Amino acid sequence: MAKIVTGMAMSLDGFMQDANGSSAALSTGEDDFRNTERGKACIAATGAVMMGRKTFEMADDPDLYAGNYEFQVPIFVLTRNPPAKHPREGSGLTFTFVQDGLDSAIAQAKAAAGSKQVTVVGGPSLIQALLQKGAVDELEIDLAPVLLGGGRRLFDNVDKEIAFETTSMDPLPLGGIALRFSAKR
Amino acid sequence: MAKIVTGMAMSLDGFMQDANGSSAALSTGEDDFRNTERGKACIAATGAVMMGRKTFEMADDPDLYAGNYEFQVPIFVLTRNPPAKHPREGSGLTFTFVQDGLDSAIAQAKAAAGSKQVTVVGGPSLIQALLQKGAVDELEIDLAPVLLGGGRRLFDNVDKEIAFETTSMDPLPLGGIALRFSAKR
Repeated sequence: MAKIVTGMAMSLDGFMQDANGSSAALSTGEDDFRNTERGKACIAATGAVMMGRKTFEMADDPDLYAGNYEFQVPIFVLTRNPPAKHPREGSGLTFTFVQDGLDSAIAQAKAAAGSKQVTVVGGPSLIQALLQKGAVDELEIDLAPVLLGGGRRLFDNVDKEIAFETTSMDPLPLGGIALRFSAKR
Repeated sequence: MAKIVTGMAMSLDGFMQDANGSSAALSTGEDDFRNTERGKACIAATGAVMMGRKTFEMADDPDLYAGNYEFQVPIFVLTRNPPAKHPREGSGLTFTFVQDGLDSAIAQAKAAAGSKQVTVVGGPSLIQALLQKGAVDELEIDLAPVLLGGGRRLFDNVDKEIAFETTSMDPLPLGGIALRFSAKR
């Protein structure tokens, strides 16, 4: 079955945004995601995408999604409020607004991904809900070598112990570290 | 001037103890610290030690400190309440209970360390106070590949942004990662 892969950038003290809502201090210093080696590998491995409503909105530009989004695959947006106008779709890119809950979104995304992976692009609320459910198979953290001292935590709302294995660690251009973990089953 | 070097084990979600006060899930799987390569290097590099009162108490066994403690150097304990009986000292090991604050403890420890480093062995309150003051030169985090979901945070009580550079990353036996950072000045 398709693996669920997710991750985000995080400070040493666990924040994915500072107190002003900025994630500038967490920049990896990489080029555009799709031009990096790991970006290319991720895009090639991805059979379906999951995202939350806010993440969808942040990029709700018909030209971006249908023509220029890095993942031209079926996209599953978990939301109780689908947009009034269905966004433009592309050759491989379709949108499904899943209104009947996380389990349904997981099942649909895995079915669509087939032998590839489901990539969860965020936001943190969706990642946290998937972790809490024990549904995350691989976790990727871009650890930025900075303490932010406050802000929004990446791992809030997860209240149980979840064990992983470290699968890789690679330096990033601005001094951060790309860490990958697999869930222990 | 002597560098201040500190660090602790931490979970992916930033805890140094779980909700029950246990740090078992953060174990590195290494042998006794003094028998590891990095332990030997740290002991050789250390000219003075700083610790908080609780950390002192956890090991307040005269035989341990004077005879068997890995750091046989001047030890500075930051506390308003020195013990009634001065602990036994060794050939290189002395105890100074610093009652006039963190700045004084830093100054005394740096003077004692000379050309070597000041190693801060904990606890988290002391580490946090040193970070907040901008006094930490090198930070070592043993990152355990586990989410604890709750407990005591390593980086609480630090409310400002502090930038570091990654200086090394090494795998640990049980799947964790030994991360070292230098403060950007």
